[in-house]
Amino acid sequence: MKLSTDSYKGARDFYPEDKRLQKYLFGVMRAVCERYGYEEYDAPILEPTDLYLQKGNQEIINEQTYTFTDRGDRSVTMRTEMTPSVARMVAGKRQELGYPLRWYSIPQCWRYERTQRGRGREFYQLNVDIFGDASIEADVEAIRIADDIMKDYGASADMYDIRVSSRELLRELLRQHGFDSTMESTITSVLDSYRKPSFDKKRTKLDQDSQTKLIELLDYIQQEDVLQLESGKRLASIIDVLEKQDVKVTLDPTITRGFDYYTGMVFEVFDTHPDNNRSMYGGGRYDNLLEAFGAEPLPTVGFGMGDHTLQCFLELHELVPALQSPTEVYVIAIGQEAVTASQVATELRSKNINTALDSTGRKLEKCIKTADKKSIPFVLFVGETERKENRYTLRRLSTGEEVKGPVDELAQVVFEG
Amino acid sequence: MKLSTDSYKGARDFYPEDKRLQKYLFGVMRAVCERYGYEEYDAPILEPTDLYLQKGNQEIINEQTYTFTDRGDRSVTMRTEMTPSVARMVAGKRQELGYPLRWYSIPQCWRYERTQRGRGREFYQLNVDIFGDASIEADVEAIRIADDIMKDYGASADMYDIRVSSRELLRELLRQHGFDSTMESTITSVLDSYRKPSFDKKRTKLDQDSQTKLIELLDYIQQEDVLQLESGKRLASIIDVLEKQDVKVTLDPTITRGFDYYTGMVFEVFDTHPDNNRSMYGGGRYDNLLEAFGAEPLPTVGFGMGDHTLQCFLELHELVPALQSPTEVYVIAIGQEAVTASQVATELRSKNINTALDSTGRKLEKCIKTADKKSIPFVLFVGETERKENRYTLRRLSTGEEVKGPVDELAQVVFEG
Repeated sequence: MKLSTDSYKGARDFYPEDKRLQKYLFGVMRAVCERYGYEEYDAPILEPTDLYLQKGNQEIINEQTYTFTDRGDRSVTMRTEMTPSVARMVAGKRQELGYPLRWYSIPQCWRYERTQRGRGREFYQLNVDIFGDASIEADVEAIRIADDIMKDYGASADMYDIRVSSRELLRELLRQHGFDSTMESTITSVLDSYRKPSFDKKRTKLDQDSQTKLIELLDYIQQEDVLQLESGKRLASIIDVLEKQDVKVTLDPTITRGFDYYTGMVFEVFDTHPDNNRSMYGGGRYDNLLEAFGAEPLPTVGFGMGDHTLQCFLELHELVPALQSPTEVYVIAIGQEAVTASQVATELRSKNINTALDSTGRKLEKCIKTADKKSIPFVLFVGETERKENRYTLRRLSTGEEVKGPVDELAQVVFEG
Repeated sequence: MKLSTDSYKGARDFYPEDKRLQKYLFGVMRAVCERYGYEEYDAPILEPTDLYLQKGNQEIINEQTYTFTDRGDRSVTMRTEMTPSVARMVAGKRQELGYPLRWYSIPQCWRYERTQRGRGREFYQLNVDIFGDASIEADVEAIRIADDIMKDYGASADMYDIRVSSRELLRELLRQHGFDSTMESTITSVLDSYRKPSFDKKRTKLDQDSQTKLIELLDYIQQEDVLQLESGKRLASIIDVLEKQDVKVTLDPTITRGFDYYTGMVFEVFDTHPDNNRSMYGGGRYDNLLEAFGAEPLPTVGFGMGDHTLQCFLELHELVPALQSPTEVYVIAIGQEAVTASQVATELRSKNINTALDSTGRKLEKCIKTADKKSIPFVLFVGETERKENRYTLRRLSTGEEVKGPVDELAQVVFEG
């Protein structure tokens, strides 16, 4: 039987050129997070299933997890999101850790979903959280980091829109419009789809009375300055501080962030491109995170950012940079010069130049083609004449331009780029 | 019910200090591989189970995999090793890729094993492979990279021993001592355990005739120069070139590398420490990698290196460096100075200084303690007096030494380290 070369459905292979892009994407995330004093952590991709049976999105738990029984009869689930794992880790060392904790991670998560554009069965998601800081500065910081990441990818302010609201405000609005606490979760979920195609379907599932109240609520928030409400004051301060720090945000009380666990400020970052006008990612404040573990409560604010939607955004706005190979020089041994070629390669490496060595003995043109295919900027030829003269030829593949000289001099050319 | 804060049995949580060590370990691997012109790739952690049902270690397949059926009724297996995945990827683009390919990856792998020292249920394993190069220079390069990695961790030549042999040589030795081809796989596996506690158990399971032949074989390789054999010539050249490049290796015909797929040179790196005198990792040449996919054969040489055994080695030889926080400055807002403190932090960040901001309003001593707990080297105080004078205090936590000045000057102190 011949084995298939396809990867598992909905999961991606990362060939070097794909991995190079991923390293760039993750590199920007890491740089911004660390600039704000966040430290990276990680957790196992397999978790006890119990961890996901608490609060959360029921649809994901019941229909979308990769859950199975291990050989020791334990039910395990492949990570669907990082929040339960990080809550577990923080609860496990609740007393030992120094607060506020600033933590980030870029875990891979798995969900069994219908595969579609911008959504596979696995994705990576940057998670950024500040634990143990109830101040509005922490809310501000989460949004600033999200904003800085967009800017560091080269996005300009008109390409995306950060929409903010808060759960306190939402609760007051719901009460004001006659929804009691039993309806809170349902209406929150309907509002969460306000800018999604599923909104009408979700809305019309409500009873007639709720539909009427919902329309009144939507009218109200369009016409009134909700920040004047008692519950809007904290949100008003957050928006005010952000504006002073040149971070543009839009108040939007329809932003709820689906999940039940949010307790305060919530935000979502939208792509403004007409072909992709949708929410890309978001986050907010969730102060009851450790409850399920019986640990002392901890005020927390954070966000998650998936790699699929990010990549769509960057491609659509033409923000993906041309990425070069990490290899700088391709040394080609001509004829029987493998030993000298190896010495030359070693010398270049000792000068911190990433150098691949081709001692396959193939035709020169074939070797050059290989270097070109890998987008390696320089090739260096080592033949008998070169060895005898101790002068080698360095060719820049983009222009065909050549320099001849001892290794030292050629290394200098490579350094200069 | 109170949820447990334990991670899944046999799997590790990486708190920031653990992740910092991992980043150091992987950073060295990446730097050495890229120095030799290797490019990073990755594959999904879930693979179709069929991929593992071909050649390989039967024990792992039958008893040690995490295998389950997905919601679409496909049998999937969590990656146990990277080789089947990389073979799949290369076979999938057999004609498009430019050879020789130099690829590396640091995937996480899962095996359901009894948990013990240096062995959990998940581990990371550096995989380094050169595809499409049949020359002895490729064999040499694989061993040189393994050697360079050890040196880059600070290991001296007496701390480890690279033992080499080859499957061609092994086959000639087996034939010479009367083992026919049906016994090859069995004896290869017994020899693989020669330096392990399981050797006696495995050996005594053989019939009396095979046991006698095996003893004769072991005597023979101790007394004779096996490199003089016809099948030893290629290995002799590899050893010769390595010696000329100052890489110390030991010939050891008992090295076989268990797996059936090796076809040529094989090597293992041993820890020489008396408390841990065992094989840490290894690799070799395996030229029939793509057979199962019906793709054109491709000469390949590579190795894998697990993170557990590496970490044991570094700890035992006291080679784990003291690792600092990526955060350089901890800005503390005193009293009502959150706005100014935030401006100071922004200014430091704009100078590429990783800066965390503490605007919790806690007692100063508590804030300093937090910075210290996170091994952040500097704290910077922002109070009312400081703001009015536009001069702030920077304290180096290790010595208690303080400097007062505008942000520009303090940034300079941080740069100087």
